[in-house]
Amino acid sequence: MLQPERIIRLEDDRVVMLDQRRLPDEEVELHCTSAADVAEAIRSLAVRGAPAIGIAAAYGYALAVARGEDLDEAVATLAAARPTAVNLSWALEQMSGGHGDAARQARRLHRDEVDRCRTMAQHAAALFAAGTRALTHCNAGGLATGGYGTAVGALRAAWEQGLLSHVLVGETRPLLQGSRLTAWELEAAGIPHEVIADSAAGHMFATGEVDCVLTGADRIAANGDTANKIGTYTLAVLALHHSIPFYVVAPTSTVDLETPTGAEIPIEERAGEEVTERFAARNPAFDVTPASLISAIVTEAGVLRPPFGESLAGHGLVTADAGEVRP
Amino acid sequence: MLQPERIIRLEDDRVVMLDQRRLPDEEVELHCTSAADVAEAIRSLAVRGAPAIGIAAAYGYALAVARGEDLDEAVATLAAARPTAVNLSWALEQMSGGHGDAARQARRLHRDEVDRCRTMAQHAAALFAAGTRALTHCNAGGLATGGYGTAVGALRAAWEQGLLSHVLVGETRPLLQGSRLTAWELEAAGIPHEVIADSAAGHMFATGEVDCVLTGADRIAANGDTANKIGTYTLAVLALHHSIPFYVVAPTSTVDLETPTGAEIPIEERAGEEVTERFAARNPAFDVTPASLISAIVTEAGVLRPPFGESLAGHGLVTADAGEVRP
Repeated sequence: MLQPERIIRLEDDRVVMLDQRRLPDEEVELHCTSAADVAEAIRSLAVRGAPAIGIAAAYGYALAVARGEDLDEAVATLAAARPTAVNLSWALEQMSGGHGDAARQARRLHRDEVDRCRTMAQHAAALFAAGTRALTHCNAGGLATGGYGTAVGALRAAWEQGLLSHVLVGETRPLLQGSRLTAWELEAAGIPHEVIADSAAGHMFATGEVDCVLTGADRIAANGDTANKIGTYTLAVLALHHSIPFYVVAPTSTVDLETPTGAEIPIEERAGEEVTERFAARNPAFDVTPASLISAIVTEAGVLRPPFGESLAGHGLVTADAGEVRP
Repeated sequence: MLQPERIIRLEDDRVVMLDQRRLPDEEVELHCTSAADVAEAIRSLAVRGAPAIGIAAAYGYALAVARGEDLDEAVATLAAARPTAVNLSWALEQMSGGHGDAARQARRLHRDEVDRCRTMAQHAAALFAAGTRALTHCNAGGLATGGYGTAVGALRAAWEQGLLSHVLVGETRPLLQGSRLTAWELEAAGIPHEVIADSAAGHMFATGEVDCVLTGADRIAANGDTANKIGTYTLAVLALHHSIPFYVVAPTSTVDLETPTGAEIPIEERAGEEVTERFAARNPAFDVTPASLISAIVTEAGVLRPPFGESLAGHGLVTADAGEVRP
């Protein structure tokens, strides 16, 4: 596993991150020397993944403090970088509300997020039966979370416990976070995997090659509706059609109790040129999976079951049911 | 619309085709001077689309006759080029069973296929209500059929009748037949369209932007189960979930009454490198949409309704129900 500080870290006068746009071809560090630089790194996807952009924003805030920048402006710039993941505003609220050393506070936020991933992975692994073949989408790995991963963290834990046999990875067009980043992480972890075109998922369900689906989340509304990378909703519909469990794995920093339902989650539309430079294109970066299609939401608090309005509000710990995933 | 002879034609000593691998960047003709050359053009996707590879095989056969090639060998080579589309063996049977001038017979087969497309397009257009927003996948256009198109032919006819308002085109990974070929054809026809990542289809259904789905077919089994480009099945499941009609548009040359169900249709697995050169990948080129998810199959014989076992066997002409597609 990549060390958290290799993915992103705060130095005295800069935030240094692995440039995720260049992976897996090159491992290049990007140096951000102002909060605006960090915001641009978030906007341009040098760092992506809901928990990771929260961590980046926290470091951007700490950098603004160190440099004596106008903090209101720094917060506004960082918060506006991307709209969908709630972790961005969550991290900035944590930092703004803090008293004390901003650098220490940001590093602690980073460490806590990684710890949450490790905890939720243990909860999620209890959902696996021996021989499970999982499908995941986009990258909910160490890169997306500052270390370890949410959905990929669950796969790591299940693999270590001997419960996982194979992972299908949706390539995740248009920017290929699945085939560039998740496959790279699974390869490094020694977990057997194959990349598929996103459109091949249906065929894999139909031929009985998927036992469960795990994804991360960019924002979980109070009722459990979940925004995540475009294509997630399609996988949830397929999982329903094939009676396969669909799990969301995310830290509580991704849960937004102030957004009542998915209808109120802002969905980022990115440039059509990411899809094709030659013709007109639509490029929604996220979609919303209704709570009714989600079998469980796994956070560091445990395995939350429907009705999510109650389980999320109370952070109720629900006992994992290992029998649900068929081998 | 591209002239049929621009897409593919037989000359005295060669078969000349527009190389579809180079579109839309370049319009380059490929010259095949033997049946084996034509088989290689089919295998390598210089010509693709079920009806078009049938036409190519017919011209390849005629070329073998003109060159005095061993015809059994030519037929075997052409038939083995790709496994899923039944049009390949259908066309070779037509040619092998013919008496007379092979060149004339192949040109007639080509002309008949284009005529079938024009006829089925009129049948299919009767399914559209004014203002219809359609979704299509891959390329079931003039390029795939030697002229005019099946699903895209239906869109042409509906557009000319003022019934079509917009087309969403799935880009169709890994080889992008949607964003390279279908968008190019729709642009030339002046039909408003936008390309989407295949994984964005679910979001478009969920936001109410799709009134119907139309695709072509590579093989329709006797019970109506339909093999088509990978990703088609996923769209059919989404259409069912959203109560949106799902139409297959294909000539009777794609109907294979000797294959009882989709389970017996051979599904081509292509090289994983088409998906990613860096990691292991699975690359099924087609999937099977069960008859139960198909609202109608439109052929030159008319709009066929379930149960398809009966309507396909009898080529029964079913009256189109224009009220089914909501505006």
